[in-house]
Amino acid sequence: MELLIVKDKRIDYDGSAIKSHWAYRNFGILGNSIVVFRGRCDVKVEEMIDIEDLRANKEIKSDDMVHYIIEIFDFPSVLLASALQKLFIAKLCEVLGNYDIKTFRKGDDIYVNNKKLSISIATVSPVSMKIHIGINVEAKGIPVDVNAVGLKEIGIKNIEKFMEESGNALKAEFEKVKKDSLKVRWTE
Amino acid sequence: MELLIVKDKRIDYDGSAIKSHWAYRNFGILGNSIVVFRGRCDVKVEEMIDIEDLRANKEIKSDDMVHYIIEIFDFPSVLLASALQKLFIAKLCEVLGNYDIKTFRKGDDIYVNNKKLSISIATVSPVSMKIHIGINVEAKGIPVDVNAVGLKEIGIKNIEKFMEESGNALKAEFEKVKKDSLKVRWTE
Amino acid sequence: MELLIVKDKRIDYDGSAIKSHWAYRNFGILGNSIVVFRGRCDVKVEEMIDIEDLRANKEIKSDDMVHYIIEIFDFPSVLLASALQKLFIAKLCEVLGNYDIKTFRKGDDIYVNNKKLSISIATVSPVSMKIHIGINVEAKGIPVDVNAVGLKEIGIKNIEKFMEESGNALKAEFEKVKKDSLKVRWTE
Amino acid sequence: MELLIVKDKRIDYDGSAIKSHWAYRNFGILGNSIVVFRGRCDVKVEEMIDIEDLRANKEIKSDDMVHYIIEIFDFPSVLLASALQKLFIAKLCEVLGNYDIKTFRKGDDIYVNNKKLSISIATVSPVSMKIHIGINVEAKGIPVDVNAVGLKEIGIKNIEKFMEESGNALKAEFEKVKKDSLKVRWTE
Amino acid sequence: MELLIVKDKRIDYDGSAIKSHWAYRNFGILGNSIVVFRGRCDVKVEEMIDIEDLRANKEIKSDDMVHYIIEIFDFPSVLLASALQKLFIAKLCEVLGNYDIKTFRKGDDIYVNNKKLSISIATVSPVSMKIHIGINVEAKGIPVDVNAVGLKEIGIKNIEKFMEESGNALKAEFEKVKKDSLKVRWTE
Amino acid sequence: MELLIVKDKRIDYDGSAIKSHWAYRNFGILGNSIVVFRGRCDVKVEEMIDIEDLRANKEIKSDDMVHYIIEIFDFPSVLLASALQKLFIAKLCEVLGNYDIKTFRKGDDIYVNNKKLSISIATVSPVSMKIHIGINVEAKGIPVDVNAVGLKEIGIKNIEKFMEESGNALKAEFEKVKKDSLKVRWTE
Repeated sequence: MELLIVKDKRIDYDGSAIKSHWAYRNFGILGNSIVVFRGRCDVKVEEMIDIEDLRANKEIKSDDMVHYIIEIFDFPSVLLASALQKLFIAKLCEVLGNYDIKTFRKGDDIYVNNKKLSISIATVSPVSMKIHIGINVEAKGIPVDVNAVGLKEIGIKNIEKFMEESGNALKAEFEKVKKDSLKVRWTE
Repeated sequence: MELLIVKDKRIDYDGSAIKSHWAYRNFGILGNSIVVFRGRCDVKVEEMIDIEDLRANKEIKSDDMVHYIIEIFDFPSVLLASALQKLFIAKLCEVLGNYDIKTFRKGDDIYVNNKKLSISIATVSPVSMKIHIGINVEAKGIPVDVNAVGLKEIGIKNIEKFMEESGNALKAEFEKVKKDSLKVRWTE
Repeated sequence: MELLIVKDKRIDYDGSAIKSHWAYRNFGILGNSIVVFRGRCDVKVEEMIDIEDLRANKEIKSDDMVHYIIEIFDFPSVLLASALQKLFIAKLCEVLGNYDIKTFRKGDDIYVNNKKLSISIATVSPVSMKIHIGINVEAKGIPVDVNAVGLKEIGIKNIEKFMEESGNALKAEFEKVKKDSLKVRWTE
Repeated sequence: MELLIVKDKRIDYDGSAIKSHWAYRNFGILGNSIVVFRGRCDVKVEEMIDIEDLRANKEIKSDDMVHYIIEIFDFPSVLLASALQKLFIAKLCEVLGNYDIKTFRKGDDIYVNNKKLSISIATVSPVSMKIHIGINVEAKGIPVDVNAVGLKEIGIKNIEKFMEESGNALKAEFEKVKKDSLKVRWTE
Repeated sequence: MELLIVKDKRIDYDGSAIKSHWAYRNFGILGNSIVVFRGRCDVKVEEMIDIEDLRANKEIKSDDMVHYIIEIFDFPSVLLASALQKLFIAKLCEVLGNYDIKTFRKGDDIYVNNKKLSISIATVSPVSMKIHIGINVEAKGIPVDVNAVGLKEIGIKNIEKFMEESGNALKAEFEKVKKDSLKVRWTE
Repeated sequence: MELLIVKDKRIDYDGSAIKSHWAYRNFGILGNSIVVFRGRCDVKVEEMIDIEDLRANKEIKSDDMVHYIIEIFDFPSVLLASALQKLFIAKLCEVLGNYDIKTFRKGDDIYVNNKKLSISIATVSPVSMKIHIGINVEAKGIPVDVNAVGLKEIGIKNIEKFMEESGNALKAEFEKVKKDSLKVRWTE
């Protein structure tokens, strides 16, 4: 799994990065990848993946987020995509724990002090699994009905350092999952 | 996913419960299941799944453990088995966190104060995925080269209550993974 | 598998209900489902799934039909979709047999007295299998080259009762298929 | 799909024919196949596939049966094996209907006048799907707790002709399932 | 696998033949197929499959090519599509070897005397694998930065005969691959 | 894909190396691998994979061979195993061509001057694909009904160098197959 942390520019997320081969088309990265970048979030309705959100006419917006776009080409299944998503979220909670921040994970959502820190979606394309995770840097520009919080408000000021630590943690987690899957014999 | 918590008897784990349909053969439970039980652990060499352990001639033993045997029949893959295993371990850490116990997860191992609390393996049969997790109740009967700890030593005295809480937590986690996998549209 | 029988309104079928997640988008039903409803049938060319029909410039029309839209998320394959479709059609013939109606099944078509009672298609989306079955209530508005018949003409007057009986029969059939798949050990 | 109807000899069924490649090992038939033969039935416990039967200590016996051993190499899944099994059973009921015999299908069992005519099992090997269907020729040598009936008792005297008709009907059914799976475009 | 060699007309290749069911829509060929035809090549940008080419703004053009469009419905995977593509290219090199032409295969490209003879792409649709191979008849109308060669320049004058020989060779190769996959037992 | 060329010792091939995880159990190599070694060949009947050979009571023997054991964990299918096997054989013919040796490939067999140079088998385990290729070093100890030839007889004296060249060529071929599978968008 290749990890790219984009530091030299901001990239806004409008939902289109969830399409297959986004990392290859934009950065020339072949195969399993995590791209971490920072930018606004404003998901266009036609790019929304969560039908529950579509049915509820939800808006998905934030002025400043750290984004993770993960693509995994191993045999695609929505169940695996959803399981990996929850595992990545749990790992991010562990990374936040290293900052002595107490989190509460509810499926694919991260809460700190009952405030929502993150958004996430996981799905499949016909050739891959795609996961987006967004973490608020500041709780600005977020739909008013969401009680949100951002990294800066919980004490993480060095966003670049957090992008590196968390990106590397997600990469290491996936590689552990993969490695362990190769060292076990099958059972009857 | 059906959850069975065996309270009326002890069941020793010798590794054979990792075979497919163990829950159906022994308890009549069809389909996805978690069986939680308590008993000794002494894995016979011929039942060992982890080839790394086999190569290292490791012993897998404990006098008293809480065991989780999980079987999932959705399309079997070692990668999904390994991802779900890590997610279940992360969930158990969160359950322990509710007891104000600080854990460190290293892949599929749980540590408390640098001492090993658990063992785990995940693999596939030709029809299902199988995961075993064992948590020491007391750090007794464990190979001497392992610096181990048990639930009682970290303050969890009511083992039955822990079996119920943790069993329900794992079941809820899987059902959330499954539900989320069904509510997303695919992407291009 | 969830069964919804729509009784409070008519829904016309233009072919678009064959798309994935139609039941979730329209009725909030997650996962495997059968939706039974009544309405006109006029399949738009751009929604036609059967390339044989497209090549033959066939029209698919009827003024009044009972429709079944089935979606199954277990690992999608066109072969399984096609096998389940034939099984559902056979089941519908058995339901009609309970009314002492003698049917002739030809693959996915039901005939009564050499007249065509039904239409059907089965295919996959990237995340699910989708089956449509339509049964004429009356043989009206059907392309003139089709020698058709409807439920009312073969003695079934209580259409709502038939919708319930047949919907429940299809649901029970699928659940039997699923249950049996979980209780067998694999063979060498 | 190749069809072989063994007429020149009797073959007893002890359950071992359910293993993969049985038709290739014994008759040189490569790929998808149906082998129809006649002989006793006495399934050894170690060959039993249905864990429900194993749990109930059931005996599976009959002095004289028509047997169908079906192997399908298209992507193996227990769900597809189970769906095809039910479809083949439904087809056999239709064949019996052509003899004006009224049948009642209950999943994978055929009943005539509330008496059990058949046994069946469907499962997977790591490379294929395997289905066994057995139809009593006469209700002899069957466990006493089973209220059974045979082909001869319901008026089918020409067993060879029935073997041919039914074998060809199953083959045609599978080929229709396969053909239809190839002529449909996928849906969104 | 069905083989169609189109001799009575020229068909230009603009990339759209890479879509699923092209052979069925255009020639009524169901299932696995190879269609061999001759015509210009000018792949429209919106039909380009190779993202590497898209990123490099490559043009894919030739005035006169022999084209092979292969579709295989056995369980689709990009890895299998890519492996079969390379095997088909190796087979074409062997066919050229029968003309005493010395080729150099570089993945999915054929070179003769360091000049490029062919283009190729392999991918999946949601229901099938699709491969296109194009072999220059003459090195005309090819992007100037490509050092190309054509069949006529290396001594193959009878293009129809080559279309037949090579088409039959590819069909035989696939059928050997398929047959061998059916005659092996699985291993532990 | 990891490549190991065993130079410091001979390893005899009795067929058991075809089992899954052989490279990990014996050399600690995790994941996709090619192990190249030299030794006798005498396949025990119980390890034979090719049922055609079993049916013909063939012996598989040679006094001195270069062996390739390839294991690939990407989604196992017998069709992909068989396709990769033919591609690897074609690649070995190309390597031999670099020595100016003219070969004739017949599926998975290599002939030089109508004499058989190699043996090969490809199959699946429940977790991987396994391929064995054996190339005679000298045509000794081979069943008398086989008209065989060895590397030394066709002019390749430096066996270690050939093991390295061919091992690297197979590894490069697989990596090209894999890489190309990741850089193409899917088609409709």
